[in-house]
Amino acid sequence: MSLIQVDCELHYQVTVPTSFLFHVTPANTPHQAVQHEDVKVEPPKEYNIAYLGAEDNRVFRVETMPCELTLRYQEKVSLNPSVADPPQIPETDYPTLSEEVLPYLHPSRYCESDRLAAFAMAEFSSLDRGYSRVAAICEWTYNHLKYSSGSTNASTGACDVLILRLGVCRDYAHLAIALCRALCIPARYVSGYAVALEPPDFLGFFEAYLGDHWYLFDATRLAPVEGLVRIGMGRDAGDVPFATIIGAATLVKKVVSVEELTEQIPRQGPPDESAVSTA
Amino acid sequence: MSLIQVDCELHYQVTVPTSFLFHVTPANTPHQAVQHEDVKVEPPKEYNIAYLGAEDNRVFRVETMPCELTLRYQEKVSLNPSVADPPQIPETDYPTLSEEVLPYLHPSRYCESDRLAAFAMAEFSSLDRGYSRVAAICEWTYNHLKYSSGSTNASTGACDVLILRLGVCRDYAHLAIALCRALCIPARYVSGYAVALEPPDFLGFFEAYLGDHWYLFDATRLAPVEGLVRIGMGRDAGDVPFATIIGAATLVKKVVSVEELTEQIPRQGPPDESAVSTA
Amino acid sequence: MSLIQVDCELHYQVTVPTSFLFHVTPANTPHQAVQHEDVKVEPPKEYNIAYLGAEDNRVFRVETMPCELTLRYQEKVSLNPSVADPPQIPETDYPTLSEEVLPYLHPSRYCESDRLAAFAMAEFSSLDRGYSRVAAICEWTYNHLKYSSGSTNASTGACDVLILRLGVCRDYAHLAIALCRALCIPARYVSGYAVALEPPDFLGFFEAYLGDHWYLFDATRLAPVEGLVRIGMGRDAGDVPFATIIGAATLVKKVVSVEELTEQIPRQGPPDESAVSTA
Amino acid sequence: MSLIQVDCELHYQVTVPTSFLFHVTPANTPHQAVQHEDVKVEPPKEYNIAYLGAEDNRVFRVETMPCELTLRYQEKVSLNPSVADPPQIPETDYPTLSEEVLPYLHPSRYCESDRLAAFAMAEFSSLDRGYSRVAAICEWTYNHLKYSSGSTNASTGACDVLILRLGVCRDYAHLAIALCRALCIPARYVSGYAVALEPPDFLGFFEAYLGDHWYLFDATRLAPVEGLVRIGMGRDAGDVPFATIIGAATLVKKVVSVEELTEQIPRQGPPDESAVSTA
Repeated sequence: MSLIQVDCELHYQVTVPTSFLFHVTPANTPHQAVQHEDVKVEPPKEYNIAYLGAEDNRVFRVETMPCELTLRYQEKVSLNPSVADPPQIPETDYPTLSEEVLPYLHPSRYCESDRLAAFAMAEFSSLDRGYSRVAAICEWTYNHLKYSSGSTNASTGACDVLILRLGVCRDYAHLAIALCRALCIPARYVSGYAVALEPPDFLGFFEAYLGDHWYLFDATRLAPVEGLVRIGMGRDAGDVPFATIIGAATLVKKVVSVEELTEQIPRQGPPDESAVSTA
Repeated sequence: MSLIQVDCELHYQVTVPTSFLFHVTPANTPHQAVQHEDVKVEPPKEYNIAYLGAEDNRVFRVETMPCELTLRYQEKVSLNPSVADPPQIPETDYPTLSEEVLPYLHPSRYCESDRLAAFAMAEFSSLDRGYSRVAAICEWTYNHLKYSSGSTNASTGACDVLILRLGVCRDYAHLAIALCRALCIPARYVSGYAVALEPPDFLGFFEAYLGDHWYLFDATRLAPVEGLVRIGMGRDAGDVPFATIIGAATLVKKVVSVEELTEQIPRQGPPDESAVSTA
Repeated sequence: MSLIQVDCELHYQVTVPTSFLFHVTPANTPHQAVQHEDVKVEPPKEYNIAYLGAEDNRVFRVETMPCELTLRYQEKVSLNPSVADPPQIPETDYPTLSEEVLPYLHPSRYCESDRLAAFAMAEFSSLDRGYSRVAAICEWTYNHLKYSSGSTNASTGACDVLILRLGVCRDYAHLAIALCRALCIPARYVSGYAVALEPPDFLGFFEAYLGDHWYLFDATRLAPVEGLVRIGMGRDAGDVPFATIIGAATLVKKVVSVEELTEQIPRQGPPDESAVSTA
Repeated sequence: MSLIQVDCELHYQVTVPTSFLFHVTPANTPHQAVQHEDVKVEPPKEYNIAYLGAEDNRVFRVETMPCELTLRYQEKVSLNPSVADPPQIPETDYPTLSEEVLPYLHPSRYCESDRLAAFAMAEFSSLDRGYSRVAAICEWTYNHLKYSSGSTNASTGACDVLILRLGVCRDYAHLAIALCRALCIPARYVSGYAVALEPPDFLGFFEAYLGDHWYLFDATRLAPVEGLVRIGMGRDAGDVPFATIIGAATLVKKVVSVEELTEQIPRQGPPDESAVSTA
């Protein structure tokens, strides 16, 4: 168990009447609980909370006239990563997959698993099925891509990433997700925060469904998996942007801070302690 | 009110152990009710019913060893299209859109509304907001595309369709959906059956969210809107294929028949009687 | 006749042994003649002149070890635009097109005229054939795109531009070229300089083959056609980059200046005097 | 030396006045000479010969009113493949590449070498430079793609092929060409005929520029390199279609036959005898 302090500040120059959906608050899951939350909008405005999509991702809805808008968000989250024994975690045969996870086998906009089927089969079908195969996909992704800020954009999907061999965190996640789905392993995108990420920022990672749980993976190795804090889950990054803007607004400042308040998360834990599950 | 008889027969040559998800049964909605249903799988097999995704689309799960598999499906559905006065149906301002419909404003794989934003604004932003604007999008789509069987494939999205100016029913729907979303009108894909479609087949069409209801539209004009029978709803055609196959199977025969058993659906109804809503 | 002074200065930070192809010198054509030329490379280096491709575009080849490389280029060019009467300039029927121009009917990487065929036919096939039809294509392009620096990249082709409705000069040219080719009008990309372009820079425009001449067009309207100075011609911008770099070099400064030394080029000439041809 | 008999018959249903460019006749090169040629067009028509593009590819131009058009083409070609010692054939350093070959380093529509740069470097940059590196590219292509008729179309480029891992002969050539260019080895597409190809048809292969010659390669291994007969060369398949049609015509029959008249071409020649060059 660890307690994480998340601070997030977003400033926008808003030039027309605009609606925001802010998707910045950690989710409550069996392994992650919001202990304290403080939200400030300036100039002061009411906001509504909404729950979006199949995963009921929690968002703030804010309406504003032209202004300089600031969202300040502070939260304490307790993380209770479950420690499992990865070599024992199996893949689930398709016929026994529960209906909730089946949509996470579909191709999606940024995770074109149908197009990647032949590649995924050639590269990964002979590996032992289970947690270790997803770990192998992450390792392949890590080894074959170059992390390069600004190299990709909102049109970049997993196929582009596989060709270009570079990307940022969301691209790493998209490629790994697409490869999992191509192998019939349900996988979904997770937006979140990360302890010990440098520089601090939002981070995109992913979950694969193994046994009967979702397990966290991060192919970028930018931060320890035990310190990942989930915001929202979706088919790909298109489902969980930190802000959706209907109107016109320019982000002029973004400050994210993530601190561990209590115990030290082991940075170099052996791989068989890195599994983190949520129901 | 009308009573529709749907018959569907799918034959597959299955060459390895294979799982099927059949997505062929009409949905129950306030305006559409399944009265009688008969499902046969040959060789005889148990099947499970599952409910997928945000819309709880009903599917049959069938597992089989290599064989010649036949699914025979018969159903009577009562349709009770609500007749509204389209000129009175408004668009809903974004701030008052309910959270259930917000995901249907997102771009999706085949409906890249973000890329089409400038075009949609240039072409449709000056029109009166409301039902008539979606009707105008359908008319534009109908007038600018050429229906051409076999002209597109599983990679074809709305942007391709707008460039190539041709497609089949799913492509018409994708383009219209993308244009609606680009104008901040929630829109979703609907797979279904259609009375008086020649030749009989599955049909893809769409719904737009106006006022506080989903309204049916079909930009292809291949069949009267009053005779459309919904199977499933999703972000685009990728969410509601009539069959998902994990394994290896070849479709060798597909027979669809849709008959109206009771009253005649007016083929040339004036546009202000064509609105069909579901909650 | 007018005399144009072109100055161009390019500074690179070169970090490994690198080869450059500089494609910055005005071409000699019947309507454009280089009067004086001064090329300096610093640190001092020999350079070779090469002539590339079907149009014998003149380039400088420079080899260098890591250094801070500067190319300074000054030239006086006389321009002698021919003034024709556009309403009299016909399109050439395909069977009588000379073999030299046939390759400029092909689709190319950034000018996917095959994909745009249906759109081009729907929009422009009913117009009178001839100069005025190409002018109409330029007008359509000008009216439907928004000039937006930095909005596109090296992957952006005419189809993207038509969807996104924005771009820079090369994108305008690519779209217009693709539309011409789709209508069986040979068209090619031209890189060059432009009098009265603000801010001064390289400019991409295009030529269409009408009657038995190539005529200059610029769909951006950023500068008068009479003051356009050709550097090189090709199928699209990929053929005539101002610099091709084999190795590793970063452009740290680019200064372009284009001054008219003698008479004033009329900025608001009536359209029937704007035709400029080269053999 | 061997003598090859090529027969080619193309039947079209022509429905409007139509122009054809037929690109079916073997080229004359230092290693390949047309000995005898017989061309028949039915119904009888005059045709013109034209020479297209940087490589002066020879084409027949035929104009016709609506009809059933047949082109019958027979030719005897002598092939004199030069036998070199591949291990001795070097790559040419960029600074010493002659200007004629520089355009074959550019990305082209179907050979997006710029996008494949990182992949090409990761996979092939550590190999010995020279003929063996191009052979390694061919071997990689052969080993990682699955030949699948009808799997690709006129939009498919090298990046698609690398993702999908399948294609036909032109796709194999495009991928190999793109990889060569990404490594700074000039490469171009060649359309042609092939002895011992089953079933007989046109074949697409490629040439790489090594030392100071163009060497033939075929990544499909469908036919021996010594029996390849060149028709035309270009940047990619878009430059050398066997027929370009301006108008409307449907190919209803295509018969190709390629027979070796004299000596047997060794089918299993050791790799060091397989090099075939042309000036």
